[in-house]
Amino acid sequence: MKTISQQQVPVQDYRFGGEGIVIIGGPCAVESEDQIHHIARAVAAAGGHVLRGGAFKSRTHPGAFQGLGLPGLHMLRRAADAHGLLVVSEVTDTAQLQSAADLLDIIQVGARHMHNTALLQALGPMDVPVLLKRGFGATIDEWCGAVEYIMEGGNRKVILCERGIRSFETATRFTLDLAAVPVMKQRTGLPVIVDPSHAAGQRDLVAPLALAAIAAGADGLMMETQCHPEEALSDGAQTVTCEDFADIVKRVGTVAEALGRWLAE
Amino acid sequence: MKTISQQQVPVQDYRFGGEGIVIIGGPCAVESEDQIHHIARAVAAAGGHVLRGGAFKSRTHPGAFQGLGLPGLHMLRRAADAHGLLVVSEVTDTAQLQSAADLLDIIQVGARHMHNTALLQALGPMDVPVLLKRGFGATIDEWCGAVEYIMEGGNRKVILCERGIRSFETATRFTLDLAAVPVMKQRTGLPVIVDPSHAAGQRDLVAPLALAAIAAGADGLMMETQCHPEEALSDGAQTVTCEDFADIVKRVGTVAEALGRWLAE
Amino acid sequence: MKTISQQQVPVQDYRFGGEGIVIIGGPCAVESEDQIHHIARAVAAAGGHVLRGGAFKSRTHPGAFQGLGLPGLHMLRRAADAHGLLVVSEVTDTAQLQSAADLLDIIQVGARHMHNTALLQALGPMDVPVLLKRGFGATIDEWCGAVEYIMEGGNRKVILCERGIRSFETATRFTLDLAAVPVMKQRTGLPVIVDPSHAAGQRDLVAPLALAAIAAGADGLMMETQCHPEEALSDGAQTVTCEDFADIVKRVGTVAEALGRWLAE
Amino acid sequence: MKTISQQQVPVQDYRFGGEGIVIIGGPCAVESEDQIHHIARAVAAAGGHVLRGGAFKSRTHPGAFQGLGLPGLHMLRRAADAHGLLVVSEVTDTAQLQSAADLLDIIQVGARHMHNTALLQALGPMDVPVLLKRGFGATIDEWCGAVEYIMEGGNRKVILCERGIRSFETATRFTLDLAAVPVMKQRTGLPVIVDPSHAAGQRDLVAPLALAAIAAGADGLMMETQCHPEEALSDGAQTVTCEDFADIVKRVGTVAEALGRWLAE
Repeated sequence: MKTISQQQVPVQDYRFGGEGIVIIGGPCAVESEDQIHHIARAVAAAGGHVLRGGAFKSRTHPGAFQGLGLPGLHMLRRAADAHGLLVVSEVTDTAQLQSAADLLDIIQVGARHMHNTALLQALGPMDVPVLLKRGFGATIDEWCGAVEYIMEGGNRKVILCERGIRSFETATRFTLDLAAVPVMKQRTGLPVIVDPSHAAGQRDLVAPLALAAIAAGADGLMMETQCHPEEALSDGAQTVTCEDFADIVKRVGTVAEALGRWLAE
Repeated sequence: MKTISQQQVPVQDYRFGGEGIVIIGGPCAVESEDQIHHIARAVAAAGGHVLRGGAFKSRTHPGAFQGLGLPGLHMLRRAADAHGLLVVSEVTDTAQLQSAADLLDIIQVGARHMHNTALLQALGPMDVPVLLKRGFGATIDEWCGAVEYIMEGGNRKVILCERGIRSFETATRFTLDLAAVPVMKQRTGLPVIVDPSHAAGQRDLVAPLALAAIAAGADGLMMETQCHPEEALSDGAQTVTCEDFADIVKRVGTVAEALGRWLAE
Repeated sequence: MKTISQQQVPVQDYRFGGEGIVIIGGPCAVESEDQIHHIARAVAAAGGHVLRGGAFKSRTHPGAFQGLGLPGLHMLRRAADAHGLLVVSEVTDTAQLQSAADLLDIIQVGARHMHNTALLQALGPMDVPVLLKRGFGATIDEWCGAVEYIMEGGNRKVILCERGIRSFETATRFTLDLAAVPVMKQRTGLPVIVDPSHAAGQRDLVAPLALAAIAAGADGLMMETQCHPEEALSDGAQTVTCEDFADIVKRVGTVAEALGRWLAE
Repeated sequence: MKTISQQQVPVQDYRFGGEGIVIIGGPCAVESEDQIHHIARAVAAAGGHVLRGGAFKSRTHPGAFQGLGLPGLHMLRRAADAHGLLVVSEVTDTAQLQSAADLLDIIQVGARHMHNTALLQALGPMDVPVLLKRGFGATIDEWCGAVEYIMEGGNRKVILCERGIRSFETATRFTLDLAAVPVMKQRTGLPVIVDPSHAAGQRDLVAPLALAAIAAGADGLMMETQCHPEEALSDGAQTVTCEDFADIVKRVGTVAEALGRWLAE
């Protein structure tokens, strides 16, 4: 990774990796026009910048809710536009890439696809920012390899996301590896954000891990948020309420200021 | 997985999961017509049944040898036919599936793609045996989920392959989880084979792990084999020589007989 | 460990690390004179060589049964003597060492104490065989370090025991690392036995893992055995019945013979 | 752990678990009167509260520096007294406990001894605060079990210390599990501090992990500190300089204030 220098990734009016902390919120999966609009309003009101929501879901078992597909991306886009937010969503196959690029501001490669070299290579020649999550069984060296697969094609707009790795500890869903934040910044020069929701697996741990991520130097946060998480079709247990989301964003702002940074504007 | 009963998977003249142990040998990657013919001859002479060889490789870094692609599959097929062997090779994207199915007896889903649900779903409606490797960061429950994704589409010809999981131990490349053999047989009723090469990461450990796999109840073995492993473009350190391969197959036969099984005929 | 050469460890009439496979059976904990005598009889009848049984137990929580202490060791000794067996039991503190050495043929250092350097150093000047289990969080390098702590004091009668390490997989209690058998034999020249019971955590996996261990080159087995495991005060779920124990020993003998070895006589 | 309520642990003039953050600094091992006095002066000048320094070391290999023993504890005490600091040091065997209790303000049980139930039980009836580090292979449930072993004897002055667990990632020495901070506070009500040095294994990661720990809710920090870390007989690579220590303490104070806490006074 010698040729990669410290670089920020601009996405519309924001810059990932600058002094401003970027906040991403939204549900695990887009479930309906109504659901995503309510959440978008709350994310925007809380000072969030980007709306997330899955439409193509990679679930462990095929019986689980698999997402709404392309119509879900359209709902996400409309909800974000209505509230002045950007959008990020995950793609799980090369066949989805073009329509996803037309609708999204950032394309996410999820943890289960970090090793999907065909998908990574297809993103290489595209002019779209990529949010590259770390595989939960992937070493830092392998994560760097995934970055290289994208960059080889010319696309240098890569934002990294630490979301927890698999360890023997079962009290949490995954083990958040916050040392990966400074290590990946050193090795790649790229912005690194953190997803505390998937690491925690339970909502009362999201706030402490979110604050810890910022203190470790993260450039942003992605948090699963629902107005009524107990009704979510997936990941409800780790999803914070819209009220909690607003509270966490406020506290993140305070910690960021103590470190000479601020919430992105 | 309640609907899955104990079932053998027929592939041409062999049955995975019966009393006969099936032996798969061949290089990490097909490198040339010459290379794969030499190895095919040695695998057949040693009593092996299936020739393996990668043509679409998912490597950690893009600078590493990525395989010969479709021409590599043709070489593999010709070499196998010349020596009366079946062929298995890995696909890494849905776009490769149709031509792979035309050329191969078994399509392999590799460890890095066990979570690739688009690929698994595309294999569902196809009439081709699938060798489904366990992801190195995947739990047994997630592995069962991947089986379900394929079977939902109607394809019940799934052969499982344990190849080592990631643990803190670095003396070997991965930690071979042989308890997964009886556990997966109980849970799915499907045949389970073992790849000791990737688990070991060094060739002198392949023989003891291969024998241990058979004693644990494995229905077959997949071992990386080269006539000149020190010249291999990938995975040379864990690749056994053709002489060692023949010796291991012989010892596998002896252990199998002690357990009331035998090498497939 | 350069100075350590291939060496067998004699214990009374047996030699660990020779061609004969040594079988150790018995309960997790000695519970009563009656219990241990019944089990000793069954272990001897099945062809076992050494009786195990804990008297000083290191349990996760203090409310769990902690063992009978020194009186338990006396019961163990008497039961073994009555049936021509040797005895092994665990010590958990330097204060127990002298009386343990007077009563036992082999002193066990358990997985939770592999890092207890005070205990290891105290065993150094003693003339007693030590069964050194691998810590479930310990690397192979650290296990070698524990061997060195004992040997520095002059005691070279060390028998190693792989018993599973901690990984992310929860379908079994621990993940049995059978590659450790050949690796530790290479590095230390010492005999290595395997405890499949603690790795499995459930009795129906003990047999396949026991046979796999022998095929991987293990010099012996330690299996938790009870005549009525469902009544055991600890570890009942992973304890095989005396009938199953006899059956496993017989099958171990068959596999050993296929490998040019045999049950110790 | 139902009976344990939220409780602070007073140690001389400080209270662990209150709003004040307690800072512990000092070398891996006490090496000489001169060394420890220089460091004590720097720790005190930087605003640290407690001096650490090992005298009984549990090293992986016996050839490594094992510490000065009891004379080392005397040096540590004198250096601390000269600069108004408290002292904490590790014991590794029950035989060391009484003289350690006479000299130390806090007795540390190290990661390698968290499972040493004899040591834990011996601390139960003593009236001395215990710093109980998490074993690097220990689950949160097992850590709770170790707390219970101490408390059963009546000693309720237990301070917990997360110091990283073992995962497959090798870019850092261990993987710091910051979710353990809120989880253990919920489960035990006890103060939890964090040791970023052992988790990081390299000094440039100590600052981000220290700040992250405070943001996650830690009640204190323990950081390995040396005036000339490159000369340290052990753990030099992960030891920060006295200048860096002072800088980290200052930044910790700023982050603590953003969270409504402060450095202990």
